[in-house]
Amino acid sequence: MSLYLECSKCGEKLDANKTAQLCPKCAAPLLVRYDLKKIDFSPKKLANRPYNLWRYKELLPIKDDRNIVSLGEVITPLIKLDRTAKTLGFNDLYLKDEGMNPSGTFKSRGAAMGISKAKELGVKSFIMPTNGNAGASWALYGARAGIKAHIVMPKDAPEITKKECAVAGADLYLVDGLISDAGKIVAKAVKQYGIFDASTLKEPYRIEGKKTMALEILEQFDWRIPDVILYPTGGGVGLIGIYKALLELRELNIIDRLPRLVAVQAENCAPIVKAFEEKAAESVMWQNAKTIAFGITVPKALGDFLVLEALYQTNGTAKAVSDADILTYQSLLARNDGLFICPEGAAVLAAADQLLKQGWIAANDRVVLLNTGSGLKYPETVNINTPLLNKEDEIIL
Amino acid sequence: MSLYLECSKCGEKLDANKTAQLCPKCAAPLLVRYDLKKIDFSPKKLANRPYNLWRYKELLPIKDDRNIVSLGEVITPLIKLDRTAKTLGFNDLYLKDEGMNPSGTFKSRGAAMGISKAKELGVKSFIMPTNGNAGASWALYGARAGIKAHIVMPKDAPEITKKECAVAGADLYLVDGLISDAGKIVAKAVKQYGIFDASTLKEPYRIEGKKTMALEILEQFDWRIPDVILYPTGGGVGLIGIYKALLELRELNIIDRLPRLVAVQAENCAPIVKAFEEKAAESVMWQNAKTIAFGITVPKALGDFLVLEALYQTNGTAKAVSDADILTYQSLLARNDGLFICPEGAAVLAAADQLLKQGWIAANDRVVLLNTGSGLKYPETVNINTPLLNKEDEIIL
Repeated sequence: MSLYLECSKCGEKLDANKTAQLCPKCAAPLLVRYDLKKIDFSPKKLANRPYNLWRYKELLPIKDDRNIVSLGEVITPLIKLDRTAKTLGFNDLYLKDEGMNPSGTFKSRGAAMGISKAKELGVKSFIMPTNGNAGASWALYGARAGIKAHIVMPKDAPEITKKECAVAGADLYLVDGLISDAGKIVAKAVKQYGIFDASTLKEPYRIEGKKTMALEILEQFDWRIPDVILYPTGGGVGLIGIYKALLELRELNIIDRLPRLVAVQAENCAPIVKAFEEKAAESVMWQNAKTIAFGITVPKALGDFLVLEALYQTNGTAKAVSDADILTYQSLLARNDGLFICPEGAAVLAAADQLLKQGWIAANDRVVLLNTGSGLKYPETVNINTPLLNKEDEIIL
Repeated sequence: MSLYLECSKCGEKLDANKTAQLCPKCAAPLLVRYDLKKIDFSPKKLANRPYNLWRYKELLPIKDDRNIVSLGEVITPLIKLDRTAKTLGFNDLYLKDEGMNPSGTFKSRGAAMGISKAKELGVKSFIMPTNGNAGASWALYGARAGIKAHIVMPKDAPEITKKECAVAGADLYLVDGLISDAGKIVAKAVKQYGIFDASTLKEPYRIEGKKTMALEILEQFDWRIPDVILYPTGGGVGLIGIYKALLELRELNIIDRLPRLVAVQAENCAPIVKAFEEKAAESVMWQNAKTIAFGITVPKALGDFLVLEALYQTNGTAKAVSDADILTYQSLLARNDGLFICPEGAAVLAAADQLLKQGWIAANDRVVLLNTGSGLKYPETVNINTPLLNKEDEIIL
């Protein structure tokens, strides 16, 4: 079989023609595997294909194009940061703007792939816990596919993500707790009703959507790898997906080395950073997690060992930044380069600047910041303080 | 000269190598003109160009590519509406999703072009009135270019657009009134300080950005024109730009007929619809304008005569819809096709359905709905009513 599932821990192989969740033997996440020796994929084949993530079809798990569920995905822009780079001392700094995805975040890549595969496998409904953006994306792609969504979300998740679930017709539940609490409620419902569980990494296909971030970055750089890629890390699937894509491209002899990968977290929720500093293989549940970068408020990720492996294997690192720095760098980027990014993305810029000042990043390194979402979804990160004029007033410039 | 400005009323010609506002003779808007007989533009030339609006460079006013100010514009998706079409009875219905632009609205096309040309002409600062989204886009592109923005906005404009101006470092002023009141305050400041006036149609280049919507639609349909294009109409520049692009393509013999253009307004602010029904050449200031589709709350547009000309010349029409219908069709589209659009875009779907039921649109017509922005900027259009669970609760499916 050219497409199958493989357990990320015990190596157990599973059929990809029916729905799967965790490994039935050891309860670890399953990864999608392709027979890369037989795959006929090369950058030249892309020339006349549609300009969106579906162009990488040999490395994606959808067997029949008619099952593709699309909300108009684009190749998101890789933007050179001129004024910000100059201000901070970088010479070759880029931002991959995932805010340009449908629903305004990178989560739509996972939803596009996960819902398309769910459609291919005949899934009619699903349930998932979320910090907001993943649930919004899955609800919207689910509506497009005619698949019913049940979404469980912490009450403190971004308000707009609740609205997206509601307008899409999903059944939305709010929980007085964190995503880990939402996960427990979902687990109980899955056990009781046997509904498909679309929780992070309990559903094997969203990684394949997220790995297209790396495929796009490589194609945008004409298949020359950058030196460093920084990623805001909650559940970690974005980073796991990027690392998986890089390994596949290396096996296909399209690249011959790997960029250093950096996991960025918030100081008040930094289990991966702590584990990395202790050279551990897994993380420990973080107590009293709280940060303005709500999307990365994940106290213990199911795929933590995969994230840490990606950091160790690429000579990467992990870095935590403060909420104050997140807001400072969000503003710095908007004022210098006109990009209004989400706090998770701003965390990455803050971390990059610290790593530059510490010498871990060199000024001439080609550095890619992953901005995972649009600032439009985070109005509370910006304060306005401006006088109200009457119709007859004049302004003084 | 191959590029010049021409008055839309008296035909006066002006040099395009220095900044211009309205016609110095008759105070009407200026239009950008190209020597279309000498231009070497054909669809075949586009094959290997970047996949964004700058690919149409022969029909754009930027002379030196180094002046292009970009925030990562993409060719916005043209999405076939399957389930919505079936529900309403259309057989060939598409939505051009302008919510996929930087800052989430079509206004970024105008800002990208206007700011790039301002940079080319050496402008250092500008002022403009706005219903929110245009000001946000111009503030962000201004930041990217290092051009200072002064933005005057009604206090009732979408909250997120105020945040965008603020985060970009623009000087933001809120007015207790409508955009027409903001316009008066801007006019006084322009008179007093001589600052560049980037008001709609007092700045000639934003039309050139907005016309790329039509260029993209045509290319996405392989240069076959659709039967009907519906557009939400406030200031009307989107529609004026689309019409201008169509005329240019016809003069270049790339198309041989025009689609019927439809201006969509809200029942409580419908000056163009009223003028169209009276077969008038211009509109009359609408009293007590108020609609949930805030972006089209424009009681009297400077370019009304150009909008009306576009409707008359293409055998088009004008249609007003209620706020209740706007919310109904916004929800209908999200539930059926997973697209969360702005109320202005929802007005267009509502109008299309009415025109179908009235027979003005035929079921087999190829119909394009312009969704001008993302629903992410309009959280107040969706209500949520969901119980708050405790950590220990279970849900019943």
